[in-house]
Amino acid sequence: MLTLYDCSTAPSPRRTRIFLAEKGIKYECLQVDLAKGEQMKDEFAAINPRRTVPVLVTEDGKSLSENLAIAYYVDQLHPEPPLMGTDPFSRANVLEWNARVEFEGLHAIAEILRNTSPHMKNRAMTGRQNIPQIQELAERGRMRIETFWEDLDNRLQQTPFVAGDNFTLADITALVCVDFARWVKASPAENLKALHSWHNKVSKRPSAQA
Amino acid sequence: MLTLYDCSTAPSPRRTRIFLAEKGIKYECLQVDLAKGEQMKDEFAAINPRRTVPVLVTEDGKSLSENLAIAYYVDQLHPEPPLMGTDPFSRANVLEWNARVEFEGLHAIAEILRNTSPHMKNRAMTGRQNIPQIQELAERGRMRIETFWEDLDNRLQQTPFVAGDNFTLADITALVCVDFARWVKASPAENLKALHSWHNKVSKRPSAQA
Repeated sequence: MLTLYDCSTAPSPRRTRIFLAEKGIKYECLQVDLAKGEQMKDEFAAINPRRTVPVLVTEDGKSLSENLAIAYYVDQLHPEPPLMGTDPFSRANVLEWNARVEFEGLHAIAEILRNTSPHMKNRAMTGRQNIPQIQELAERGRMRIETFWEDLDNRLQQTPFVAGDNFTLADITALVCVDFARWVKASPAENLKALHSWHNKVSKRPSAQA
Repeated sequence: MLTLYDCSTAPSPRRTRIFLAEKGIKYECLQVDLAKGEQMKDEFAAINPRRTVPVLVTEDGKSLSENLAIAYYVDQLHPEPPLMGTDPFSRANVLEWNARVEFEGLHAIAEILRNTSPHMKNRAMTGRQNIPQIQELAERGRMRIETFWEDLDNRLQQTPFVAGDNFTLADITALVCVDFARWVKASPAENLKALHSWHNKVSKRPSAQA
């Protein structure tokens, strides 16, 4: 059985949980309490020196700590239902949109949160290194996420799902992104109708509760 | 034939050029002069609204603008020689290391360059939006890249190539990363022997000239 090191309240491992739920895969789930700093303890560093969750441990004891790598590993073992495209271009396009949502969306929101939260002083980035907060970076994050919501709305005016005609990994990342934005009051503007309509649709999938 | 929108002096499209060279694929190569701001012209925005290179245009006229997506597309059409792993775990692990090198390495160096260069005022990030420079972010980039070089050296003490036993996409990204670091005088410290030894080795591959 696969093992997932998770933190039930954090956006990053939620991406993995939704992916596994869509695939219908059972796994052992172990909680790492980020609020208590459990990821910085030696015990967890031995599992993941990067001090991040999610971490997926395979049946033969190897581990992966990038959301994309975890999804791709699981997808190769359990190709159905397809969540990462069905032909060369659509498969590449899922990676393209997943990367865009991750970098232009999730990272921008994380910049806002991590550079302002009093609980994250010196933890402005994940990892083994302490990183001080930069106030201007939080402001830049707000600029960036507004632009990204516009781009994503524009995309969703053209296609029913983020990477095209079908629900994919890119939708999972974008769903987590929109929900994460609430934490820093940076949700998409109400006039972005296509984005809100898509969000309502994907939020109704049972996996969204994972 | 595939078409690549390239900028011969820039690190990001170099990643694609090296990948295509390793695969032995011929393609049409069109230059976009970033120094002259050609990526911001309407003509190029019609090709890639993100205003970035590389852009790969497929034989049937679809385009991709993320390095990873381009590599994955090409890899599916031309699986030999393998550059993205050979079994489920090794394939996932290539994506894991590629993402780490990209985010912890290339992004840190880009932060240094783009937040200090007098030529990049208001262009601290790529994209359609103008982003002002943040001095502290350049300093943070220097902290981050030093940590990353240590982590990468540590990794290369354990495995001959970044993602394991074979040369892969993750090595291409890391090679471009090490060479890009010279631009901002942030090259790995001399005592990181495994990293320098690996860099000498991969730099001798003919594709490194691409």
